[in-house]
Amino acid sequence: MLDLNMELIRKQIRQWLEEDIGTGDVTTLTTIPLEHVSKGIIHVKEDGILCGLSIAKEVFAVVDDSLRFEPKVAEGSSIKKGTVIAEVEGSTRSILLGERLSLNLMQRLSGIATKTREFVDALEGVPTRLVDTRKTTPGHRLLEKYAVRVGGGHNHRFGLYDAVMIKDNHIKGSGGIAQAVQAARQQIPHTMKIEVEVEDFDQLHQALEAGADIIMLDNMIPAKMKEAVSIIKDKAPHIVVEGSGSVTPQTIKAMAETGVDVISVGRLTYSVAALDISLDLNERKETAL
Amino acid sequence: MLDLNMELIRKQIRQWLEEDIGTGDVTTLTTIPLEHVSKGIIHVKEDGILCGLSIAKEVFAVVDDSLRFEPKVAEGSSIKKGTVIAEVEGSTRSILLGERLSLNLMQRLSGIATKTREFVDALEGVPTRLVDTRKTTPGHRLLEKYAVRVGGGHNHRFGLYDAVMIKDNHIKGSGGIAQAVQAARQQIPHTMKIEVEVEDFDQLHQALEAGADIIMLDNMIPAKMKEAVSIIKDKAPHIVVEGSGSVTPQTIKAMAETGVDVISVGRLTYSVAALDISLDLNERKETAL
Amino acid sequence: MLDLNMELIRKQIRQWLEEDIGTGDVTTLTTIPLEHVSKGIIHVKEDGILCGLSIAKEVFAVVDDSLRFEPKVAEGSSIKKGTVIAEVEGSTRSILLGERLSLNLMQRLSGIATKTREFVDALEGVPTRLVDTRKTTPGHRLLEKYAVRVGGGHNHRFGLYDAVMIKDNHIKGSGGIAQAVQAARQQIPHTMKIEVEVEDFDQLHQALEAGADIIMLDNMIPAKMKEAVSIIKDKAPHIVVEGSGSVTPQTIKAMAETGVDVISVGRLTYSVAALDISLDLNERKETAL
Amino acid sequence: MLDLNMELIRKQIRQWLEEDIGTGDVTTLTTIPLEHVSKGIIHVKEDGILCGLSIAKEVFAVVDDSLRFEPKVAEGSSIKKGTVIAEVEGSTRSILLGERLSLNLMQRLSGIATKTREFVDALEGVPTRLVDTRKTTPGHRLLEKYAVRVGGGHNHRFGLYDAVMIKDNHIKGSGGIAQAVQAARQQIPHTMKIEVEVEDFDQLHQALEAGADIIMLDNMIPAKMKEAVSIIKDKAPHIVVEGSGSVTPQTIKAMAETGVDVISVGRLTYSVAALDISLDLNERKETAL
Amino acid sequence: MLDLNMELIRKQIRQWLEEDIGTGDVTTLTTIPLEHVSKGIIHVKEDGILCGLSIAKEVFAVVDDSLRFEPKVAEGSSIKKGTVIAEVEGSTRSILLGERLSLNLMQRLSGIATKTREFVDALEGVPTRLVDTRKTTPGHRLLEKYAVRVGGGHNHRFGLYDAVMIKDNHIKGSGGIAQAVQAARQQIPHTMKIEVEVEDFDQLHQALEAGADIIMLDNMIPAKMKEAVSIIKDKAPHIVVEGSGSVTPQTIKAMAETGVDVISVGRLTYSVAALDISLDLNERKETAL
Amino acid sequence: MLDLNMELIRKQIRQWLEEDIGTGDVTTLTTIPLEHVSKGIIHVKEDGILCGLSIAKEVFAVVDDSLRFEPKVAEGSSIKKGTVIAEVEGSTRSILLGERLSLNLMQRLSGIATKTREFVDALEGVPTRLVDTRKTTPGHRLLEKYAVRVGGGHNHRFGLYDAVMIKDNHIKGSGGIAQAVQAARQQIPHTMKIEVEVEDFDQLHQALEAGADIIMLDNMIPAKMKEAVSIIKDKAPHIVVEGSGSVTPQTIKAMAETGVDVISVGRLTYSVAALDISLDLNERKETAL
Repeated sequence: MLDLNMELIRKQIRQWLEEDIGTGDVTTLTTIPLEHVSKGIIHVKEDGILCGLSIAKEVFAVVDDSLRFEPKVAEGSSIKKGTVIAEVEGSTRSILLGERLSLNLMQRLSGIATKTREFVDALEGVPTRLVDTRKTTPGHRLLEKYAVRVGGGHNHRFGLYDAVMIKDNHIKGSGGIAQAVQAARQQIPHTMKIEVEVEDFDQLHQALEAGADIIMLDNMIPAKMKEAVSIIKDKAPHIVVEGSGSVTPQTIKAMAETGVDVISVGRLTYSVAALDISLDLNERKETAL
Repeated sequence: MLDLNMELIRKQIRQWLEEDIGTGDVTTLTTIPLEHVSKGIIHVKEDGILCGLSIAKEVFAVVDDSLRFEPKVAEGSSIKKGTVIAEVEGSTRSILLGERLSLNLMQRLSGIATKTREFVDALEGVPTRLVDTRKTTPGHRLLEKYAVRVGGGHNHRFGLYDAVMIKDNHIKGSGGIAQAVQAARQQIPHTMKIEVEVEDFDQLHQALEAGADIIMLDNMIPAKMKEAVSIIKDKAPHIVVEGSGSVTPQTIKAMAETGVDVISVGRLTYSVAALDISLDLNERKETAL
Repeated sequence: MLDLNMELIRKQIRQWLEEDIGTGDVTTLTTIPLEHVSKGIIHVKEDGILCGLSIAKEVFAVVDDSLRFEPKVAEGSSIKKGTVIAEVEGSTRSILLGERLSLNLMQRLSGIATKTREFVDALEGVPTRLVDTRKTTPGHRLLEKYAVRVGGGHNHRFGLYDAVMIKDNHIKGSGGIAQAVQAARQQIPHTMKIEVEVEDFDQLHQALEAGADIIMLDNMIPAKMKEAVSIIKDKAPHIVVEGSGSVTPQTIKAMAETGVDVISVGRLTYSVAALDISLDLNERKETAL
Repeated sequence: MLDLNMELIRKQIRQWLEEDIGTGDVTTLTTIPLEHVSKGIIHVKEDGILCGLSIAKEVFAVVDDSLRFEPKVAEGSSIKKGTVIAEVEGSTRSILLGERLSLNLMQRLSGIATKTREFVDALEGVPTRLVDTRKTTPGHRLLEKYAVRVGGGHNHRFGLYDAVMIKDNHIKGSGGIAQAVQAARQQIPHTMKIEVEVEDFDQLHQALEAGADIIMLDNMIPAKMKEAVSIIKDKAPHIVVEGSGSVTPQTIKAMAETGVDVISVGRLTYSVAALDISLDLNERKETAL
Repeated sequence: MLDLNMELIRKQIRQWLEEDIGTGDVTTLTTIPLEHVSKGIIHVKEDGILCGLSIAKEVFAVVDDSLRFEPKVAEGSSIKKGTVIAEVEGSTRSILLGERLSLNLMQRLSGIATKTREFVDALEGVPTRLVDTRKTTPGHRLLEKYAVRVGGGHNHRFGLYDAVMIKDNHIKGSGGIAQAVQAARQQIPHTMKIEVEVEDFDQLHQALEAGADIIMLDNMIPAKMKEAVSIIKDKAPHIVVEGSGSVTPQTIKAMAETGVDVISVGRLTYSVAALDISLDLNERKETAL
Repeated sequence: MLDLNMELIRKQIRQWLEEDIGTGDVTTLTTIPLEHVSKGIIHVKEDGILCGLSIAKEVFAVVDDSLRFEPKVAEGSSIKKGTVIAEVEGSTRSILLGERLSLNLMQRLSGIATKTREFVDALEGVPTRLVDTRKTTPGHRLLEKYAVRVGGGHNHRFGLYDAVMIKDNHIKGSGGIAQAVQAARQQIPHTMKIEVEVEDFDQLHQALEAGADIIMLDNMIPAKMKEAVSIIKDKAPHIVVEGSGSVTPQTIKAMAETGVDVISVGRLTYSVAALDISLDLNERKETAL
């Protein structure tokens, strides 16, 4: 799986810790002795797909690199309520400083992976890719796109900078699909693709003419979508066809069966239902060395 | 209402724009002429409590301070599907650059305000405060706590630095409630409060003895919680009593009727169900200036 | 004692080193061979209370983490002129790069701790707390508040964000003490305290009525202050009473005897009389490694 | 006078405001209406030399660029207790947010300018320059060196990067004055000067031989210092001679009369006795706009 | 033309100004009165293609937004020695502060545009695109790629993040072209292209089989390259063919005539021959208001 | 040799890596297994002077501190085409992430060192120093000045902040050479030098009168320059004389023979002809650890 650029993640972890800790954790610093050590047991309290172990590990490492973090299950596992997913051992102060952020992140990422898996399971038997959108939480795009991959999905473009996506507003602004595609093609690197969002067959033909690399069929009923797919594939089989609309795990199979290569689903990251995860401390009386 | 420190928000907006725009919006820059101007109409697609207008305004101002952003309803309004909530006018390129981030933020904040209002409405007739927790999205704490206020709720502490909150782990680590409270009181500023989380009457009495400023009753059934409240109020009426547990809009009134001053609800910010908001461009043919 | 959030301190140390070193120490880099090693002996040249050993250690660690820094006395010790307080051993270049900053910081912090101890000693026999104010050196608040604690004092709030402090200007701006306290109470977290600064008995009664958590008696003569304290303690013994005015080590005991719980003294950090500390290098001929 | 690089100062002001304001001024935001306007009158409460008006102006501008800040006296003026030095008018909230930082800075800088002027006055009638050292408050070097200039003094080097200063440790490390000067001269730009600190006549002759540009006579009694100056000036009149030692306003004239060109005084910035300055708000009932 | 993301450029300009100005321009601040105004005339001293006017304008705006910068020719113009390309008017101090950086940038960018134009002119009559590589000056990639576009060329990918480019090392590391392409395709977004670099016909056929979107023919003699192009175009006309090797303006036409769509030339940005540009001040006696 | 301040360099390396890697190297992360290890052999493909080994080492250390980087030749060596200059061993992914940046930097720095050496060799037999100017690549000044030193040259001032350099514009702005020198001398530290650029004998005499520390003879023919040098040396032998003009390796000896102490050559860094250096991976089948 496409791994994370941990350097970027670490920078964010530092900012997020600062948001929570500010000038210092007044409770922990005043009540827990410096030398007190513990083992934290992290377990899930709901069934779901686990995501974010390596992120939690990084959070604890940023707080205190002498903490030992040991994952007990694999990233992306389907786990049952009550499963111990990791242990973290060392300075009690450090464990408490990293607790909230590491849990907040794993809960959210596991929530996304779990929802993604639900859609992916619904696609069983068809080769269609499930992909995310740019409707991610600001500041969390890399992580949320990672969670989609962990859940079995794939990613759409990472931002406005790495692929052209011509929507209604761009079509209006440039005078038409032909003009928009041509203007973009003329200026962008040859390493970049152009996707055109079409709403009807007229636009579809324009996009084909203009030489789009990807065509997105927006909000078409299955019968129309199927027809559109066959028009495209007949004319230019290398074009990737993306389906979009208000898809649910119940309806996605039907859309997939129209033959689209990819289905994009905003709600994978748009509303996040966190997976409940908690950390219990087992006190260890002996002091750290 | 406690306003936002906009200086901090602006710093985050810059980072979040950079996450989305990266080295440049290849679609907009190649298809929309520099001088093209439009008016964007922002409307909601679901009923809910609106939150984030001033944040959206700031996003557009950071992108291009010549954009004119005009709110059409008040922050915190209860709005119906279809309501136009704001207009933004000026360079089409700039509107498109700010579109995704401003919508992402308003959708999430309005989702939080809407959920908060649901709980607040359930508390009608009782003086109990609804408050949030530290289970916020990393990097979004200030904004999410603002959304809770907009929804009619109140805030718990902002982080680990501005109030002492002694939980089970701190009690274990320091040798008991008495020791923990005393250790904290001795070291923290006299301007800071100490909250103790108790699970039973034994702990409750210890917390009272130790001189806690706030006592949190964790996961007690209503009858016990009511009894606990009256023990506290009899002994020290200035102590704030906080109730906590798995509260829903259906059960919160019952907890409030135990007499607790404050009820904290993690799920206000823990899982965010975004409110659907979108922006339509009305093209204006004439060029700017 | 409430420990420092070293992560924040380290960020400042990096900036402060950059201020001094800029594009490079042209003297050391051109005259001291890379492999030259030394031992630096740090001693005080005046009697006082030592503060800042862990900060100096951190400075040298940021410069070069292979330096060995060994404290010879305890933080907060009362030390005599001539005492060796620490040794630092390793690369001569690195020791010279960190010398000025580590000394500047220890000198200033020890100056504050020394002045604080003078006030604290004057309070012997009374339970009154000595606390600082926000009149700290910009950029040094965390460190200076730490030095006050090392000297035996306590801290007032850390900034404008962690407690409400209603002064004359806020009273005017909101229409009165009652209005100000109510407005603040309504909006702030229940975990936060409200302090009201009063100048006479009329204001005192208003603050009591309004439900202040802390009342500051500003510039009252001892007899009046004593009377004010007893009015407050009669009515609401849990309220913290703070005395303020132009206190000196000579006059502070008299103010303490009025029964105030806390006395705040701006001059602890307002004008800093640094304690003279210096570093001597004992050259070691052999090369490192 | 050598003006300040305001770009660097502004960056620091932002950090310093963040230190004080953090997540928001809970008092001002809850008690002062957004539209409330006032005029702040800033006056001094002790006689002294005023320094920092342009810095205070910048602080208020960073907080809120709609504030009008009007200086009433000139930077560097000798002012009497009670003098109004500036007025600031506009949003009451903004004035209160910038108040503490602007006063803290002006108080400290005026303290430095005042002490500097005391030394400068003692030098009346002799052409000797008074200069500062690197014993400045970390993070405040540019500002403190500016205050020394405002007080009538001059600056020594700005950091380790803009001039070579060979002290005892460098002499030991490189094998002697001749070796140290030669090593430095060989490697540094021809635009940079080399200063050598000497403690006796033997070292003085070595420094002369080696071709130092500046010779610092450290801790010599006046008679010896006078002799040293004439040895230097006889041999190389273009060499700048710097005197150093435990100088006070009472003793500096005697050192100046030895003929040294420059006298460096660490205590100008080493221990800062702040000048008392305060801000009073005159409420204005009418709203802004 | 694909415009620049000015927000990113501005951040770099601030850093670059700080590199040059540091703690302050000691010459300008001491010799030029604050109120002195001038007009700077910027002209070229060699023939070439002009690039960087908007960057120079931004430099002066960052230094002092009251400066008026007026371009006299269009970006991308072919200009003759002696041509005045822009004027900048206002504070003399500000003009001098921005002079070096604005010239350094325009000189380098114009050098790149000029070299690019030389290659582009050599391609006249063929539809082949000239593109750059990642051999750009660290920290200058966006600007240098912009200069290539201004010179008439196009861009290759912007970094390691926006397109897959499988080279020899990746082929070895993954076990073959088929495996590498498949591994990448499986994990990357469907919006991203895969380019494979091939050195012979065997690799070419593997790349075709594997489904590459772009095939780069590395260092082939024209006859072979021509054959390779026709193999590719026969099989999959939508594949972009890139030629690479040690191309000069003299040899590029021959490579283009093999039928490749794109020719990448590292030397466009690898060694930069700056175009000589200078700024003359016309003093204006009257002071600025 | 004056070593680099590596702390500053490391900060830049992080930024430069981010420019190239962005959200992640999609090729390497998808095609090279995490545990794959290799040895990279770095060799030069042209004769020249090698510069930047310690910088390349730092790049790889920033990417992954478990990489082993071993230089095979000394910094500043004159090397022949084909020479292996370093090896780097460890994670293949990490080597590929650091490859482009480390090569880009070494190529550019070696290009500068090579060009510098060419001028230095032309100066053989005369004691004249070759120095650089401020015409460096923005963001690369420290490194490029280091490369000049590695090539055998010396540095001019580092920026606008560490020496006064009075040019034509400053003379006009202040009313004359006498006024400019006096104004600067009065305000700058005594540790700083003043250089005056003169174009004729009239200006030369003014600069001498005014007490310049360095006089730059700009664009004089050799005979005049020689006369100017003897005028200066007669009057004030301690003044450093700098020659400037359009110098080439062919003409520099003639200028040196006029007796100038220093010759400044902008083209050392103005146009950089990179030295070709490349990295080959030797795959190692066994996994790491």
